[in-house]
Amino acid sequence: MTERIVVVGFGPVAARLVDELLPAVRSGLAHLTVIGEEAEAAYNRVLVADLGVGRTTASALALSDAAALVADGVDVRLGVRVRRVDRARQQLILSDGTSPGYDRLVFATGSRPVIPNLTGLNPDPAAPVLPAGVTALRDLRDASVLRAAVAGGKRVVVLGGGVLGLETALAAVEEGATVTVVHNGPHPLGRNIDRGGGAVLAASLRNCGVRVAGNARSTGVEHNAPDGGFSALLLDDGSAIDGDLLVLSCGVRPRTELAEGCGLSTAAGILVDHMLRAHHEPHIFAIGDCAEVRCPDAECVQCRTARGPSGLVGPGWRQADWLAEYLMLLAAGSADAELLPVLAPELPGVIVLKARGMNMAVAGDNAAEPWDEEALTAGAVHGRARLQVAQWADPEHGRYVKMTTRAGVLEGLVAVGMPRSAAELVQLFERGAELPADRSLLLRLDGPDQAAAAGAADPERTVCRCAGVSGTRIAAAVTDGCGTVAEVSGATRAGTGCGGCHDDIRGLIEKHFQGAVA
Amino acid sequence: MTERIVVVGFGPVAARLVDELLPAVRSGLAHLTVIGEEAEAAYNRVLVADLGVGRTTASALALSDAAALVADGVDVRLGVRVRRVDRARQQLILSDGTSPGYDRLVFATGSRPVIPNLTGLNPDPAAPVLPAGVTALRDLRDASVLRAAVAGGKRVVVLGGGVLGLETALAAVEEGATVTVVHNGPHPLGRNIDRGGGAVLAASLRNCGVRVAGNARSTGVEHNAPDGGFSALLLDDGSAIDGDLLVLSCGVRPRTELAEGCGLSTAAGILVDHMLRAHHEPHIFAIGDCAEVRCPDAECVQCRTARGPSGLVGPGWRQADWLAEYLMLLAAGSADAELLPVLAPELPGVIVLKARGMNMAVAGDNAAEPWDEEALTAGAVHGRARLQVAQWADPEHGRYVKMTTRAGVLEGLVAVGMPRSAAELVQLFERGAELPADRSLLLRLDGPDQAAAAGAADPERTVCRCAGVSGTRIAAAVTDGCGTVAEVSGATRAGTGCGGCHDDIRGLIEKHFQGAVA
Repeated sequence: MTERIVVVGFGPVAARLVDELLPAVRSGLAHLTVIGEEAEAAYNRVLVADLGVGRTTASALALSDAAALVADGVDVRLGVRVRRVDRARQQLILSDGTSPGYDRLVFATGSRPVIPNLTGLNPDPAAPVLPAGVTALRDLRDASVLRAAVAGGKRVVVLGGGVLGLETALAAVEEGATVTVVHNGPHPLGRNIDRGGGAVLAASLRNCGVRVAGNARSTGVEHNAPDGGFSALLLDDGSAIDGDLLVLSCGVRPRTELAEGCGLSTAAGILVDHMLRAHHEPHIFAIGDCAEVRCPDAECVQCRTARGPSGLVGPGWRQADWLAEYLMLLAAGSADAELLPVLAPELPGVIVLKARGMNMAVAGDNAAEPWDEEALTAGAVHGRARLQVAQWADPEHGRYVKMTTRAGVLEGLVAVGMPRSAAELVQLFERGAELPADRSLLLRLDGPDQAAAAGAADPERTVCRCAGVSGTRIAAAVTDGCGTVAEVSGATRAGTGCGGCHDDIRGLIEKHFQGAVA
Repeated sequence: MTERIVVVGFGPVAARLVDELLPAVRSGLAHLTVIGEEAEAAYNRVLVADLGVGRTTASALALSDAAALVADGVDVRLGVRVRRVDRARQQLILSDGTSPGYDRLVFATGSRPVIPNLTGLNPDPAAPVLPAGVTALRDLRDASVLRAAVAGGKRVVVLGGGVLGLETALAAVEEGATVTVVHNGPHPLGRNIDRGGGAVLAASLRNCGVRVAGNARSTGVEHNAPDGGFSALLLDDGSAIDGDLLVLSCGVRPRTELAEGCGLSTAAGILVDHMLRAHHEPHIFAIGDCAEVRCPDAECVQCRTARGPSGLVGPGWRQADWLAEYLMLLAAGSADAELLPVLAPELPGVIVLKARGMNMAVAGDNAAEPWDEEALTAGAVHGRARLQVAQWADPEHGRYVKMTTRAGVLEGLVAVGMPRSAAELVQLFERGAELPADRSLLLRLDGPDQAAAAGAADPERTVCRCAGVSGTRIAAAVTDGCGTVAEVSGATRAGTGCGGCHDDIRGLIEKHFQGAVA
């Protein structure tokens, strides 16, 4: 019997799931329906800001070809909303009037931007209507709004000091806009970076031409532009930051209302167990930004410390890959389905920020200071080693490194202004490798004499963290004939996520053509 | 006419003055009297602790040969006290009943140990009688008391976390004693080292086997030993630190009572102007630990920021050298006397601590932290650059470096556990040289691959800071035939002070005999 699988949502994670299920569709094992609210098939949301500053094209963002999927037998519904899920009847009620049934239903509804509660903004989270001159950075329309402002040399105010806000600000400044980042707390990236790194980061942003307004609490939006649109962001100290476009970059919130409406359990996201199944509902799954892995077992150690949805594309892709395999085993009626090893928990994410004159990497738990005995010994129970911190601070030259280790292995890191040390530390972090006892050796990579040694990175290292592709796989693709980043992406999926590894992929291609690949 | 010069005190600084005046004595230009309270001629007080742990001999400490001086015509009075100075008659009243007159009188009365105000100690500063089992570290008797305790494997309690206390503790531990350093404040060397360096220093001391009791306020001394002597130091929290010998290392206080008794102005020390003359009294001078250079001119910029007596032998020696030249010009009735350039103010001292498994250097103003905007910008007025701090902290491995710079030049430094970086930083500090823009280059000197490059120090550097002798001068003495540290000391005075440079002198001798001197 053909299993009816319906995927709600058609973002990057849904697109990956659909891709991975194609063999089952082609073989007749599954009938697959994918329902997207937008008129376009899946595209790379992570690059919406890049599109907004004119660095990439809409076609380069595409992740799915709807026509090709249809040709393969997938039922693709674009511009269609799901009004309701009828779990009793196992069917969906759609805005186009149809009511497809399902054997397995997958929520991949993603997340939506958080709209801060400001005077002059509509705070209804489910249906935000933003006034003229105010935008988020989530879809293609948002990109075109930013594009118009940057191309017109307008003043852009970015509200939010997270990594997306900073990337947008840096890119917009490089493309000629005047940009102010407004954030609360003493420094940008407040949740991810320690105090010292944050201070050096803020100074580096200013050196790159980004105005940074910290410790700022915004209260409202002023609409005095000639067209009645945005003219200034108002702060609680009575001051105002003038601008022509306000970009909201205040994080995202999982889209759970459809799941809630049909009685599924939700917390931050739709609660799923380690098999990505909704609690007490084996027919329904959730993946990506809308899903929160936290199993119903109160004793589960892993879930006790689980974070909510990561907001990153990589973990969602890994869930999509795993779920596709599981669904195909289920569709085949295979007894192996329940034996499929569950997905390994994600490591704490690595956040990388790169721009002309700016390089930063942070990961893990990096808050503890070298002298903070309380923080360093907090987790050192049952014979577990205490945390140790090695730290290099040279704010005058925009350089800062912190290595937080336990038994010599990184549990957290910060590197600002030291790109090669950052790359090495990220590798050591992801591999769980022990650092050299003389930690200062790691600072040398950015010394004036080390430029020649720059290419000496471990070929086995992960180059694309979103898609999880190693240098070896990329080099093999290049050897097999890929000569551009796009070709490598097509062959390996490397570089299809945040795009932060494109320079590394280019480097590997150049190395090959210089005959330097071993 | 022969000028009558009388020197009160016969410590290392007086000895240097006497040495330098010998040509005038031999030529009959001056009649020189030196009056010492102790039975011995001048000896090196800095090494009293070394003598106390059995690392050197009393004869090696000798700085003057009384018989040779007498043979040269110097009137040497040992074991004699000055009861009073009669300025009207220009004469001294001595304990031996004589009353020598003077044309020029030099106070070189030095300092005495601070006796803390503890129950069970006699707090009379002028005539301390310490109970059995309690000693300071100032004279040869003190050394013999410490010697007995260390040789007997006793428990030594050192009260005071200054450099002398720490040196004593490290040496005594190496020689087999059980030693506890008791200090107030969060870390030892509280006045000289920053918080981070202090924390790493305390950990390094513990690694060397020294027990360190910080944040301790001592209130009294317990005398329950079988001989009625010291048995424990009592703290204000009700606890006690048991021991067999209490070594008081709480700093020194200038001996000024004789000067006060004859109406001279004093502050911390005897107040002298830039010619080392007592205020309003051109016949009387003061040098060394008892002297405080602070001229009567309220507008003098140099004196506004002048520190009190340094407690170091080097500055005293430089004063003695200068004063000898000045006194000889005066004795000769030369008009050049008043044209003699005054002594340059001393740079902030460098404090070095070396022991097996311990290396530390601190200098200058090193308190400001990298993020402390207020401290860093405090002195940046009238176009003067702000302070900048670069910092390496790796407490797990006992390593710490702080470089506090203004316009690229060190104003302060801390280095713990990194001997080669420390030596290089001290050189750069003393020379006022600009640091490399990549400050992390300075950390490499202690890298695992740098052992071979260790000898590549600048030959012009100051090797002996007490006597101010460069590597070039020492190398020349070795070329001229000096083959031991003692011979080098005899020829150049290098190594006659704190002794911290003996290893460096030995290294230069070895280099010569390996034919490695360029």
